[in-house]
Amino acid sequence: MTKTPYKIYLSEEEMPKSWYNLKAVMKELPPPMLHPGTLKPCTIEDLQPVFCDELIEQELNTKDFYIEIPEDIRDFYKMYRPSPLVRAYCLEKLLDTPAEIYYKFEGTNTSGSHKLNSAAAQVYYAKKQGLTSLTTETGAGQWGTALSMACAYYQIDLTVYMVKISSEQKPYRKAVIETYGGKVIPSPSDTTEIGKKILAENPGTGGSLGCAISEAIEVALKSENCRYVLGSVLDHVVLHQTVIGEETKIACEKYGIQPDIMIGCVGGGSNYAGLIAPFFGDKLQGKNNITFIGVEPASCPSLTRGKYAYDFGDTGKTTPLLKMYTLGSGFIPSPNHSGGLRYHGMSGIVSKLYHDGLMEARAVEQSKIFDAATLFARSEGILPAPESSHALRVAIDEALKCKETGEKKTILFGLSGTGYFDLSAYMNYNAGTMTDFIPTDEDLEKSFATLPKVD
Amino acid sequence: MTKTPYKIYLSEEEMPKSWYNLKAVMKELPPPMLHPGTLKPCTIEDLQPVFCDELIEQELNTKDFYIEIPEDIRDFYKMYRPSPLVRAYCLEKLLDTPAEIYYKFEGTNTSGSHKLNSAAAQVYYAKKQGLTSLTTETGAGQWGTALSMACAYYQIDLTVYMVKISSEQKPYRKAVIETYGGKVIPSPSDTTEIGKKILAENPGTGGSLGCAISEAIEVALKSENCRYVLGSVLDHVVLHQTVIGEETKIACEKYGIQPDIMIGCVGGGSNYAGLIAPFFGDKLQGKNNITFIGVEPASCPSLTRGKYAYDFGDTGKTTPLLKMYTLGSGFIPSPNHSGGLRYHGMSGIVSKLYHDGLMEARAVEQSKIFDAATLFARSEGILPAPESSHALRVAIDEALKCKETGEKKTILFGLSGTGYFDLSAYMNYNAGTMTDFIPTDEDLEKSFATLPKVD
Repeated sequence: MTKTPYKIYLSEEEMPKSWYNLKAVMKELPPPMLHPGTLKPCTIEDLQPVFCDELIEQELNTKDFYIEIPEDIRDFYKMYRPSPLVRAYCLEKLLDTPAEIYYKFEGTNTSGSHKLNSAAAQVYYAKKQGLTSLTTETGAGQWGTALSMACAYYQIDLTVYMVKISSEQKPYRKAVIETYGGKVIPSPSDTTEIGKKILAENPGTGGSLGCAISEAIEVALKSENCRYVLGSVLDHVVLHQTVIGEETKIACEKYGIQPDIMIGCVGGGSNYAGLIAPFFGDKLQGKNNITFIGVEPASCPSLTRGKYAYDFGDTGKTTPLLKMYTLGSGFIPSPNHSGGLRYHGMSGIVSKLYHDGLMEARAVEQSKIFDAATLFARSEGILPAPESSHALRVAIDEALKCKETGEKKTILFGLSGTGYFDLSAYMNYNAGTMTDFIPTDEDLEKSFATLPKVD
Repeated sequence: MTKTPYKIYLSEEEMPKSWYNLKAVMKELPPPMLHPGTLKPCTIEDLQPVFCDELIEQELNTKDFYIEIPEDIRDFYKMYRPSPLVRAYCLEKLLDTPAEIYYKFEGTNTSGSHKLNSAAAQVYYAKKQGLTSLTTETGAGQWGTALSMACAYYQIDLTVYMVKISSEQKPYRKAVIETYGGKVIPSPSDTTEIGKKILAENPGTGGSLGCAISEAIEVALKSENCRYVLGSVLDHVVLHQTVIGEETKIACEKYGIQPDIMIGCVGGGSNYAGLIAPFFGDKLQGKNNITFIGVEPASCPSLTRGKYAYDFGDTGKTTPLLKMYTLGSGFIPSPNHSGGLRYHGMSGIVSKLYHDGLMEARAVEQSKIFDAATLFARSEGILPAPESSHALRVAIDEALKCKETGEKKTILFGLSGTGYFDLSAYMNYNAGTMTDFIPTDEDLEKSFATLPKVD
């Protein structure tokens, strides 16, 4: 048999033509999204003022196994997809492990991550609906960048509310969004009522994701031709990210690769759910026995230490309620925590899988994440995003276990992005000034107290 | 006939196994490198204290058409090559041109440019020779980053003298080099005699490339097991970069693509020469009639306004003399010039081709470069390096000419890298504060006065 290539690229003809709807496969569905006023399941009408029509349909679709990717989105995908499935020969050699390690690398586009997969789709549907502008929030900046690229392509106006401290600390992210024609407004701002209110109360605040979400939603609600879009957590975002898993599955089948373990990092959960989706569906049908592992930061341990409860998506408590693993919307990650994955909650789909014992979760401290990231950069060449390095850390741990036991397992992980715009954390690590932070049980009790009362 | 894919990736089996030696093809050779003391052609012995043995052999090789790429380097290349040859469907559509536009994209690796092609080779030969450390200089930072990646892979120590002002303005570049284990010393420094001397004379200086080169060479000369390496200009660097052109040619032949025009940016000239090499060889044999165009900044116009003369490679006047198009080693580009391509001279090979009328050259102002870069980013997705956008600018100009004339030309350009670590120029452009600078004839007379007298 011929040696597996370093990088497996599908041809454009082999690229998936449909997304994979996990909810049509799951034996038990995640509980529905609730209206925060009535506590009844959200209807299409509830969501229409905020979200694009077709995205709401996808959000609520529990029946169709496959949902067609429109040709126009497939053409957009061809600009930067298929992404490579890489055999980590150099890492394997360095670790001296009998394990085979593969990673699906989503960082080959300018936004530097998988976020573009959903941005392309969301902007396409907005354009199709005749909308002329979109609003969103961005923290670390990956989502804002991806969305600005898609908005430039489809020629739709974009306003990004960027957490103020983040827009100051990451001028390069801001510059990229502006190069793509997006308008960046540091949040809180005086362009919205909620922003003005917060500024009046805290003139010196650096802002928060919760506040940025509230400002973006307020602007979307004010205009007929504008909607709000979100880059993770929701089911339609998970749906779009299944293009990752589908490509991976086609490549695996083509080269006879049978993963024993599949690993991804989880913040909002869309990248991880997208990677495992079709493999998970197969497992339910007895076609494989893969161990699925989601990895989160020990400083923001939604799955491993959170509660499975209905909660708001934002700290401003304005969104519908989602049943998910959550630390409470009042949870504030330690400021010394690097990179993304700072979200208090989790995708409803991922939460349900975890709750039903269908996947594992691990929490890892950031110093160990950067040990792995550095080792990976030096052997495989790619400088990984801190977020993606969570998956990488556990992949290395599993490969080292194989070295001890002599097992020749096949480990596949999602390398969701690169760290090119987010180097301050590497600078801390290189300088030896990085510290770890794990919330105490008392910290968590306080943030759990912010959970809404839902019967 | 099937539609050309958006991105053409060769399989690993199709990747070139040899570099292409332009000098074995050229009807007239570039004049030899001269020893600055004796003004006689440099011998192997002259160069050995500074450069690796095998690289000197390649530098002086004028006979072998093909030089084998060692298997170990080919394995390194497989980590990030083959690079895609992209059909710019979206750009064509936006320009509404009958022309077909293709680009060879070298920015898919973490260093963000073609520089890694030669870094991999140079470090491999250093390791093979039993050396334990290397020194180099870096200005914009692309070469330092690429070299640190190769040194991490082959486990060789690296010291990078980084122009002080650059190391302050680009902390992210420095962080990447350090993550790969390279040691960055802002130049001038107190680690060398020349550095101490310059610091004593100008305590507040921000440094220069010329000074950084001198420091790096001084350190290499002091140790048996250390050598100095350079990222452009020299013939062996051009040789390594021909992997770009060879992959491009294989992809073109596979899909029946016959370029009418091939365009690249020229600073030191290695990326451009590497791209055109095998096509140029074919043209000499009457197999094609491609127009070759090199593009340089109007603010540093070595080819279009320089003299074809023997000159030093560095401002410190310590290197061998090269016959090349040069503005004089005392030329200092305007501080408002963005990005690389700031070199006073040019590859001897490229200079000879231009001198013999075998290629054209154009000089373009930076504001027009960034117009093109922004248009490209918004249509093709990739945020290009300012350097690469010089090629892009002329490709767009040629495509617009085709729109006027109705000609269906095939235009192929080298997109040598991405601008992810170099966003301050984009920030200037977005803010509308970018200005152009073209040296006056008087400016150039002054810098020509720094040319050495060689009979």
